[in-house]
Amino acid sequence: METIRRTKISDLLRRDDFGATVSAKGWVRTRRGNKFVSFIHLNDGSTINNIQVVADNELFNEEVLKKITTGACIHVVGTLVASQGQGQNCEIQAKEIEIYGIADPEEYPLQKQKNGPSLEYLREIAHLRPRTNTFGAILRMRHHMAFAIHKYFNDNGFYYLHTPIITASDAEGAGSMFQATTLDFNNTPRTETGAVDYSQDFFGRQTNLTVSGQLEGELGAMALGAIYTFGPTFRAENSNTPRHLAEFWMIEPEVAFYDINDNMDLAEDFLQYLIKYALENCKDDIAFLADKYDKELIDRLNFITNNKFIRLTYTEGVKILEESKHKFEFPVYWGADLQSEHERYLVEQHFKCPVILTDYPKEIKSFYMKQNEDGKTVRGMDVLFPKIGEIIGGSEREADYDKLTNRIKEIGMNADPIWWYLETRKFGTAPHAGFGLGFERLMLFVTGMTNIRDVIPFPRTPNNAEF
Amino acid sequence: METIRRTKISDLLRRDDFGATVSAKGWVRTRRGNKFVSFIHLNDGSTINNIQVVADNELFNEEVLKKITTGACIHVVGTLVASQGQGQNCEIQAKEIEIYGIADPEEYPLQKQKNGPSLEYLREIAHLRPRTNTFGAILRMRHHMAFAIHKYFNDNGFYYLHTPIITASDAEGAGSMFQATTLDFNNTPRTETGAVDYSQDFFGRQTNLTVSGQLEGELGAMALGAIYTFGPTFRAENSNTPRHLAEFWMIEPEVAFYDINDNMDLAEDFLQYLIKYALENCKDDIAFLADKYDKELIDRLNFITNNKFIRLTYTEGVKILEESKHKFEFPVYWGADLQSEHERYLVEQHFKCPVILTDYPKEIKSFYMKQNEDGKTVRGMDVLFPKIGEIIGGSEREADYDKLTNRIKEIGMNADPIWWYLETRKFGTAPHAGFGLGFERLMLFVTGMTNIRDVIPFPRTPNNAEF
Repeated sequence: METIRRTKISDLLRRDDFGATVSAKGWVRTRRGNKFVSFIHLNDGSTINNIQVVADNELFNEEVLKKITTGACIHVVGTLVASQGQGQNCEIQAKEIEIYGIADPEEYPLQKQKNGPSLEYLREIAHLRPRTNTFGAILRMRHHMAFAIHKYFNDNGFYYLHTPIITASDAEGAGSMFQATTLDFNNTPRTETGAVDYSQDFFGRQTNLTVSGQLEGELGAMALGAIYTFGPTFRAENSNTPRHLAEFWMIEPEVAFYDINDNMDLAEDFLQYLIKYALENCKDDIAFLADKYDKELIDRLNFITNNKFIRLTYTEGVKILEESKHKFEFPVYWGADLQSEHERYLVEQHFKCPVILTDYPKEIKSFYMKQNEDGKTVRGMDVLFPKIGEIIGGSEREADYDKLTNRIKEIGMNADPIWWYLETRKFGTAPHAGFGLGFERLMLFVTGMTNIRDVIPFPRTPNNAEF
Repeated sequence: METIRRTKISDLLRRDDFGATVSAKGWVRTRRGNKFVSFIHLNDGSTINNIQVVADNELFNEEVLKKITTGACIHVVGTLVASQGQGQNCEIQAKEIEIYGIADPEEYPLQKQKNGPSLEYLREIAHLRPRTNTFGAILRMRHHMAFAIHKYFNDNGFYYLHTPIITASDAEGAGSMFQATTLDFNNTPRTETGAVDYSQDFFGRQTNLTVSGQLEGELGAMALGAIYTFGPTFRAENSNTPRHLAEFWMIEPEVAFYDINDNMDLAEDFLQYLIKYALENCKDDIAFLADKYDKELIDRLNFITNNKFIRLTYTEGVKILEESKHKFEFPVYWGADLQSEHERYLVEQHFKCPVILTDYPKEIKSFYMKQNEDGKTVRGMDVLFPKIGEIIGGSEREADYDKLTNRIKEIGMNADPIWWYLETRKFGTAPHAGFGLGFERLMLFVTGMTNIRDVIPFPRTPNNAEF
């Protein structure tokens, strides 16, 4: 093979220096042709677009040609020429082809077929599905969204804080957790009373996988001013639904000296930034996904960037829903935890704008939210989007030590494991606020996909930890 | 209080529009003064530098003044004036002061003292240590390094891949792992033979916390071309040393069509980029840490950016060490796993350059490394730095299905749980390479700290999962 530096296909497709000798490496998506000529569509993951490689069959050994099947990996050296057909503006006239790896058509599961394999089937071969157009697009977008998140916070003076994964506390005071342990089920150490002797576990106590980095995030905010977390979180809920994962990624900014209004400003600006970033940096992938899965995707993304977010209280929202005379599956009344159908009604039918609801009944929100003077509501906020409902949940935090500890007592929670959290209210407490964004919830929104298992590379769900 | 938008102290310290009314919020580092005037050093985490607030005592209620002690959180509105003393160029002449939160000097553990509290003590109050100069500096640098990593890969066309945390496989074929489970030690389901019935565990099988994202990373690279991971990894080793954490963060790029030389180019360029980024973006924090902990820190950082990395084989390296006549604690001979003292000798004494060693004996490296034709060595590479020894370990991967599976058999490893990994070699295999960088190892290097527990916010070590 002629030794020429390989060019990524995304870069090749932008070139017009026809006549240049180029090197491309990638996986064969399809090969068509006839006795005389082969048309190979090659993809290397750098873009959803393939480059067409045209091979004059008589230039190549038959043994080589036979191996150029869907899924094979090849190295092509050839001449960049203007494309004869429509679609791309250039293609490669092959001079040399090297086979890196075959993909036996009898065995390789990703054969070209009309409409492609089903999403359900692709979940079973999650090790190969990134090679499809759909998952290539989703995973590239996942990268761009993750980067946009880091860039937004970095540019705005937030510090990325790695909160711990293994923890001895339960941030939400609820939720099933995974235990992280080195104890042996077959030889479990016991105390004199017969209880599990966790003093012999790795950390000398019982530990779990975190459900949220917020509590530790607050420690960071009360020292560094503005922080964000972006890491994996876990729920051991036995929920087999298109909206639940046992392992997912969360983003949680937390800011000292923010009240709930600052927090809403941040959430709105942040989400609009992310959607704009997607529209600007993922054009081809969004166009593909919109065309294949969700014709309204681009309109929905523009809906976010073109509208200011309407802000109203939960109480006002419930009133609108009650007066709407719309028939909901779940009843709506003051005190009810709103369902996705209620949230979507407000966004899609009533306001035709993204919505932020604030000041929820304290009974349906977490212990750490700032208590309003009415004694009934807390300074929580949920950001509601079309199609998916709640995308962000957050609050101003209760900064007063006595009010916070009283609420903890009131709900019967054990404060001992979070003594360190309470000390932020004891030493130099300050108003502060923050929110949580489920990364996969965002990914559903920007890709138009409907099953959360399709927007994370290797989903973890009940009875599934393959790959 | 006059309502004026708060300005971060990092921004205030750059201003020279003296006479402007400004608002600052932050935590009191110290208060000095006399009967007539108070000098308050205020910090809000945005920078290591404090702003001085000068308060004419007779303007303020005595009750307010009494509460302005180390650790208290306050809000100051005043006039920006040119600094009278040396150090900062501006200070605030206070007009109004609001107390957000007191910090009772009898209870608050971070009192001003000569040389400050010990690092050992600060580990016990990791919830408060981010409020010290040292940990403020370290955590800001941790942010900047994390961002630099994302930016480097984004700018170079790599996609961030979230590999799973909970896994049914063991990437290294070794290492103690934490089990992630929802089974109950007090009521463990058993099969008929009395074994633990993992089919009743959450995932229907035994699962652990990942020790590396590499295997899944390779799946990504064989579809998207170039990926990187950056996530938490776990080792349940009972090692109580300044170099070990049970939970730490790893960065693992993986690139299709890279050979070991491309891999070395990437590692060198990447590390030099990161060190340059630190020198340019963390000047004040580095200066502080260098002054307080490590006078040679800046020289050592420049040593990386000013030198090309010397590349040689393990065999050549061992020869140099054997011929050096240097007295090492651990013996050196062909086949030995090099110790930090050996690595540092090559870097600091012999070459006076960063070093990359390649082609290690296969017995001391992982099963997935590309086998050399000599039958004895594999195409692994370690990047060696001064002071810390190995900072990066990587390799070209064995892309040949038969060679890879033979090696797996040879070492008696069970290939069943990684059937999906082996399929990358079956379907469209290609040359590829990658490496792993322990994020905390990098943080030790750029901060000059010597205990790994001091470069992560909430360290997880044997018998310690507090916070």
